[in-house]
Amino acid sequence: MEKIPILKMGDFLLVTIQVELHDQLALALQDDLTQKLARSGTRGVLIDISALEIVDSFIGRSLAHIAGIARIMDAATVLVGMRPAVAITLVELGMTLKGVRTALNIDKGMQLLREAAGAAGAAPSPS
Amino acid sequence: MEKIPILKMGDFLLVTIQVELHDQLALALQDDLTQKLARSGTRGVLIDISALEIVDSFIGRSLAHIAGIARIMDAATVLVGMRPAVAITLVELGMTLKGVRTALNIDKGMQLLREAAGAAGAAPSPS
Repeated sequence: MEKIPILKMGDFLLVTIQVELHDQLALALQDDLTQKLARSGTRGVLIDISALEIVDSFIGRSLAHIAGIARIMDAATVLVGMRPAVAITLVELGMTLKGVRTALNIDKGMQLLREAAGAAGAAPSPS
Repeated sequence: MEKIPILKMGDFLLVTIQVELHDQLALALQDDLTQKLARSGTRGVLIDISALEIVDSFIGRSLAHIAGIARIMDAATVLVGMRPAVAITLVELGMTLKGVRTALNIDKGMQLLREAAGAAGAAPSPS
């Protein structure tokens, strides 16, 4: 069965979605991600959708769902690499991806996650 | 047409291969990668194949080919996430992936690339 790989990258998990996220696959991804989050103790998840030309309401809901699960497991989710056409379609569909943060690319997404971790975790106290 | 995304991640490019790498796709990946290398000036490429359950001789050759092209364009390539079964099959096929460095996971691959860049580039001279 095809599966979406979840890569551990330093302090974050990276999910690159390249195939259409159908029912089964979205559920499998949720399962995998929760297990990886529990095992690795990471505080940030990057979901890259730069390969997706189409994001319909099902995929949008799945992504929001995954972000919600991650949040409960004390991890922030940032969606990166959204194509302009996809952003237009999502808004036309009435989906605002509430609760999901977005960034233009991986570098900016990682920066966002680091800032979030810095603000939430033990605040760095420069002596 | 499906396409394998190439993500810029800090100083490196990350290619996650999730679908079977057929003829057209391998060529498209070569094209894309050379253009990204030329444009971004990165010195390291990580190719993640953790999603691949099968790596046949065609894919093996394609990966070696891509690493060769990257080398000419002054970038090191590290193959990460190979499954144990894939490693066994490759050796049984007589493919040793000559000229392609490998690492167990992304973190170790990035470390390898950093070391390679440090050794090849302007040597850090601690005062």
